[in-house]
Amino acid sequence: MSRLVMKFGGTSVADLERISVAAKKVAQEVANGHEVVVIVSAMSGKTNEMVGWVRQTSPIYDRAEYDAVVSSGENITAGLMAMTLQEMGINARSWQGWQVPLKTTDAHEAARIEEIPTDNLDASFASGHKVAVVAGFQGIGPDGRITTLGRGGSDTTAVAFAAALSAERCDIYTDVDGIYTTDPRIVDTARKIRKISYEEMLELASLGAKVLQTRSVELAMRYQVPLRVLSSFDDDISMTAGTMVVQEDDTMESKVVHGIAYSKDEAKVTLVSVADRPGIAAAIFGPLADAGVNVDMIVQNISEDGRTDMTFSCPVDQVERAENAMNALKTSGELNFAELATDKEVAKVSMVGVGMRSHAGIAAQMFQILANEGVNIRVITTSEIKVSVLVDRKYMELAVRALHDAFELEKVA
Amino acid sequence: MSRLVMKFGGTSVADLERISVAAKKVAQEVANGHEVVVIVSAMSGKTNEMVGWVRQTSPIYDRAEYDAVVSSGENITAGLMAMTLQEMGINARSWQGWQVPLKTTDAHEAARIEEIPTDNLDASFASGHKVAVVAGFQGIGPDGRITTLGRGGSDTTAVAFAAALSAERCDIYTDVDGIYTTDPRIVDTARKIRKISYEEMLELASLGAKVLQTRSVELAMRYQVPLRVLSSFDDDISMTAGTMVVQEDDTMESKVVHGIAYSKDEAKVTLVSVADRPGIAAAIFGPLADAGVNVDMIVQNISEDGRTDMTFSCPVDQVERAENAMNALKTSGELNFAELATDKEVAKVSMVGVGMRSHAGIAAQMFQILANEGVNIRVITTSEIKVSVLVDRKYMELAVRALHDAFELEKVA
Repeated sequence: MSRLVMKFGGTSVADLERISVAAKKVAQEVANGHEVVVIVSAMSGKTNEMVGWVRQTSPIYDRAEYDAVVSSGENITAGLMAMTLQEMGINARSWQGWQVPLKTTDAHEAARIEEIPTDNLDASFASGHKVAVVAGFQGIGPDGRITTLGRGGSDTTAVAFAAALSAERCDIYTDVDGIYTTDPRIVDTARKIRKISYEEMLELASLGAKVLQTRSVELAMRYQVPLRVLSSFDDDISMTAGTMVVQEDDTMESKVVHGIAYSKDEAKVTLVSVADRPGIAAAIFGPLADAGVNVDMIVQNISEDGRTDMTFSCPVDQVERAENAMNALKTSGELNFAELATDKEVAKVSMVGVGMRSHAGIAAQMFQILANEGVNIRVITTSEIKVSVLVDRKYMELAVRALHDAFELEKVA
Repeated sequence: MSRLVMKFGGTSVADLERISVAAKKVAQEVANGHEVVVIVSAMSGKTNEMVGWVRQTSPIYDRAEYDAVVSSGENITAGLMAMTLQEMGINARSWQGWQVPLKTTDAHEAARIEEIPTDNLDASFASGHKVAVVAGFQGIGPDGRITTLGRGGSDTTAVAFAAALSAERCDIYTDVDGIYTTDPRIVDTARKIRKISYEEMLELASLGAKVLQTRSVELAMRYQVPLRVLSSFDDDISMTAGTMVVQEDDTMESKVVHGIAYSKDEAKVTLVSVADRPGIAAAIFGPLADAGVNVDMIVQNISEDGRTDMTFSCPVDQVERAENAMNALKTSGELNFAELATDKEVAKVSMVGVGMRSHAGIAAQMFQILANEGVNIRVITTSEIKVSVLVDRKYMELAVRALHDAFELEKVA
């Protein structure tokens, strides 16, 4: 019998009514002939409530205890979902992470999945259960203590189960009905994408289209799990609903640019006049990483007289950490620079599309479009399937709109 | 190193502030040189919230799922308590029932404890932990699913751990400062009892003094665990605080009557003119038990012409079930009676004291005291250390007060 994984996020199980709506979708898939693994998040707000208690109790809390506390929310939803399904006449039972077991590393609060032996679930299905409702986000570490996978880890749980069970598909039910060519709140002609490749989704996920957790997409790509994003607030669960995230293939839209993502709260930091010597990059970015600064784009200017400017971007709320780390290096004599210039009023705009691999000149086209609108580009980075630019924040919406229009993303290819 | 079990109920861990107060008491006992097992309930209100969700989801819910859901409350408190202790510099960690493991039968929602292997806890203490914070009320069944011990099961958890670990004592922290000679809300001269026997406590617990769960007292008696009831709202945790529940000994107060308990919402049901044949009691009380009626007192009148009246008491909210069961028997011809008379306006008043064993005439004294007050007695039952009477509910407080005064329970023996 074919197996299906269905994952419902916090807003999709926010209360008993939403759980009931979700259960009806599960019932439909059971009626379609599937054995279903349902992965549930905590009812929305519950995890935050518990995290609040932990923070209030202990500013530098024990991560193992944090995991033991905050994993409770998913257990509650799993039990309630199983009961709701039973009320509909469907043979279901709940599973907590340790019962499956979903084995992880011991990195509490950010554990990685090591293995999901499927013997217990297989036996459960063989005994007549049609649905296994599994508490998402949690697992069991090598020492038998509860671990969690980090916020949003339920997506990753879902994909891992789909891979372990060789499921036909992993459906991620959320509060949006798919992946859009860009944010519809900014561009009203934004169009839902029917089918997108893992690589493109990865770039979009990490660039600010916060529908899917990046790790879950990586995992789906590695194990070739067909992934679908769709809304639990729509009735339609047929194969025309939502966005499929799959391996790149010929049947995909022939568009060169597939989507435009943005990230609003970026900052640009420039170290002016740094000695341009071998190892200088490591001397700067090692300490930044140690200080917990997530450096994104990096640009090094052309060297003059043995000195250069080094520019990088990071989230705006990490600028202070970056400044402290750099000034400490200067004070200790490990790094010499003339000035540290920061600009906290920038945003990142990125175009993503696998078609860029075979189409030269897309980046140049992008720069021209932005120039026509008078948008100055501060920093540029490119990859095989992506071009990102840093622009003044006030031009962000304008840039996204102009690019979406110029590349005609509102039209199906 | 001597071990101590400390149990904190719902109101004693109601919020982070109360958890902190409780943790300070644990810290004191650690400073006193104990290894401590702390048993915690859910923060007050949490379990009821979850039970509400379950009932709303499924009127005839799956008990295994109920257990999976409602056990979450204790897990949260256990983690928060462990963190609070760590903040105070005490090496503590939390344990969920399945981690210990606390092994139970598979009777979900009302499981019985089968075994508590102490290897894991022993290893934890040996590794330097000073405190094991255990989620109360829960365990793991033979099939690896979570079980719960029934409401109030955290008391039982605490005593079971004390027995398994040969703890010096089991301290039950609650919102009252001990066991009283009667309810102080009814008799203002009610006095706190310093020391009481297991047998007396059992009678008092099951008779309505709802401080300790009956099962926990039975367990303490069987394994000779010294039990103490004291308030988490008082600062005093020295050995003069609270009430000790121990084996009967000579150092106990020489009072014949130790306490007066009452149970308000009782009902009296009489089957008028039943055929007095062998097996008639079984024919009546078997079906009542099957119908979920908790029959308490039973009185059979003297037989006349081969027919008798059979009277029993039960909680007032079970009268309808009792009526239905009896009428069904009449309809099917299995039981013949002239009339079913019910009185829902009665209450039970009981006197308890181990001294009754050696003092004749205590029951007669009781009846005389009540007669002097004009209180009519409906039903009487006696045991070695207890006399219970059913009286009209409106006289209940009067009866309790009259007995408390007449037997001078306000005075220390």
